[in-house]
Amino acid sequence: MSLLVTGSIGIDTVETPFGKRESVIGGSAIYFAYAASFFTPVRLVGVVGEDCPPHYFDVFKQRDVDLGGLERRKGSKTFRWHGRYHEDVNVRDTVSVDLNVLAERAPKIPQNYTDSRYVFLANTHPALQREMLCCLEQPRLIVADTMNLWIQTERDELVKLMKQVHGLVLNDEESRLLTSKTNVIEAARDVLKLGPKFVVIKKGEHGCVMCSASDTFVLPAFPADKVIDPTGAGDSFAGGMMGYLATQGGGLSPATIKRALAFGTVVASFTISDFSLAGLQAATRDAIDQRWFEYKQAMSF
Amino acid sequence: MSLLVTGSIGIDTVETPFGKRESVIGGSAIYFAYAASFFTPVRLVGVVGEDCPPHYFDVFKQRDVDLGGLERRKGSKTFRWHGRYHEDVNVRDTVSVDLNVLAERAPKIPQNYTDSRYVFLANTHPALQREMLCCLEQPRLIVADTMNLWIQTERDELVKLMKQVHGLVLNDEESRLLTSKTNVIEAARDVLKLGPKFVVIKKGEHGCVMCSASDTFVLPAFPADKVIDPTGAGDSFAGGMMGYLATQGGGLSPATIKRALAFGTVVASFTISDFSLAGLQAATRDAIDQRWFEYKQAMSF
Repeated sequence: MSLLVTGSIGIDTVETPFGKRESVIGGSAIYFAYAASFFTPVRLVGVVGEDCPPHYFDVFKQRDVDLGGLERRKGSKTFRWHGRYHEDVNVRDTVSVDLNVLAERAPKIPQNYTDSRYVFLANTHPALQREMLCCLEQPRLIVADTMNLWIQTERDELVKLMKQVHGLVLNDEESRLLTSKTNVIEAARDVLKLGPKFVVIKKGEHGCVMCSASDTFVLPAFPADKVIDPTGAGDSFAGGMMGYLATQGGGLSPATIKRALAFGTVVASFTISDFSLAGLQAATRDAIDQRWFEYKQAMSF
Repeated sequence: MSLLVTGSIGIDTVETPFGKRESVIGGSAIYFAYAASFFTPVRLVGVVGEDCPPHYFDVFKQRDVDLGGLERRKGSKTFRWHGRYHEDVNVRDTVSVDLNVLAERAPKIPQNYTDSRYVFLANTHPALQREMLCCLEQPRLIVADTMNLWIQTERDELVKLMKQVHGLVLNDEESRLLTSKTNVIEAARDVLKLGPKFVVIKKGEHGCVMCSASDTFVLPAFPADKVIDPTGAGDSFAGGMMGYLATQGGGLSPATIKRALAFGTVVASFTISDFSLAGLQAATRDAIDQRWFEYKQAMSF
């Protein structure tokens, strides 16, 4: 089933204890789309400025990612982000961020994408996320991501969005900010009261928690002894998860969601093994399946 | 198989967001012994001062815990600890700590305990931990815990101890301090180079990591939406783990260790559900087995 993603596309500069990469491709929709494309065809909707080098999108040449929803806007500049990770790569500083084109009007969803059944609204202004939903004809599964900024400044819009989506993905810090609960399980249950059928709380190196009305489960991250660049891990996780779900059809049983979270976990472990998209580019579906099986074995006792 | 534990016995005062308990029974050996006694007979070696109310040990009346190694030392005072947990119960301040009798000579291991095959050296000065080992005739499995203080002030002694034990249990912060590695998997592998055959790194609400030469696996904590008092969680975890291992005999296969870690995880989830020992006192072996099964199911996909 075709999977639609809308989110940011950026030009990133990243510094980690293992080196620096300047002006590399990044953004939530990019990581998500690449990660999901291991499982299902992806339709990417996003906008860049005219400064974005066309060769950036060569990374998708061998992938089943439809770039028909990619807008190159004249007179605008691409979103830029510069981050610096500490020796403890779980901590990062934002050196600079320029929203540029992301602060302008949202890109349009092409007419031939309106039949998309699986939709991921990567992090952006919740009003724009809601706008995207309007033109979808019969979505089967809509999952949204969000961030601190919107929880703090656009809570009303976010609350409206949460009534329109099936799932919400956010990190532990964001879940605390949204619910004022420090316990992550309690926070997850409070999120459910706001509308989504399920919530996934990402805890970085500590894995994730999924809560629905009937189930709560936790999965650890894939044990990685070298994290080169954590950028995009959460978006890749979401991409792996949604990519797998889009292939499953039918209802979302707890077992299906759990397997999907495990695929997300494994795909993210490839992302963090190198800078920018290099970790994902080095992956194959076979390598993902093999690591998934190892992970499954490691979890069972 | 009989399991010997040596460690602290204390009079605790604990404040958490859910209340305060003054002068309640605590200490690493106490939590460990109670937790392990769900699985196997336990021999407790520890020392208190003459101020310790005899009724404190009534908690063990229904348990298979041999208190023959408990010394009540005249003229000495019992170890006291006062801790205060933040709204986020993963963070705590030590309001006061009085080593008292723990700063004196170690208690003796009774002659009839020297045949113990399974031994847990709960956290205390590493020189004392080594002293304990001298009188053991044929230990099959020795596991030690430690803490920041000894890593910082008694590293040489600790390094000597690590060559004499099979397993080391410590928390993530301690593992970073010991190895100067921020990545927990890398830290675990560095610990192995110091001698132990396996190392378990406890990550509190984020579960644990086990590393040996041939295996690495991670387990999440049991999802708990209400943590009343986290005191003793790590010691209960170790108690559940060692208690189970002591019943297994034979070699320690990766599968056996994994099941043991899962029992430790589940037992700790009872501990944190109430103040002091009340959570463990409310548990039964049946309830532990049932929760263990739920946890196992939640992990498999």
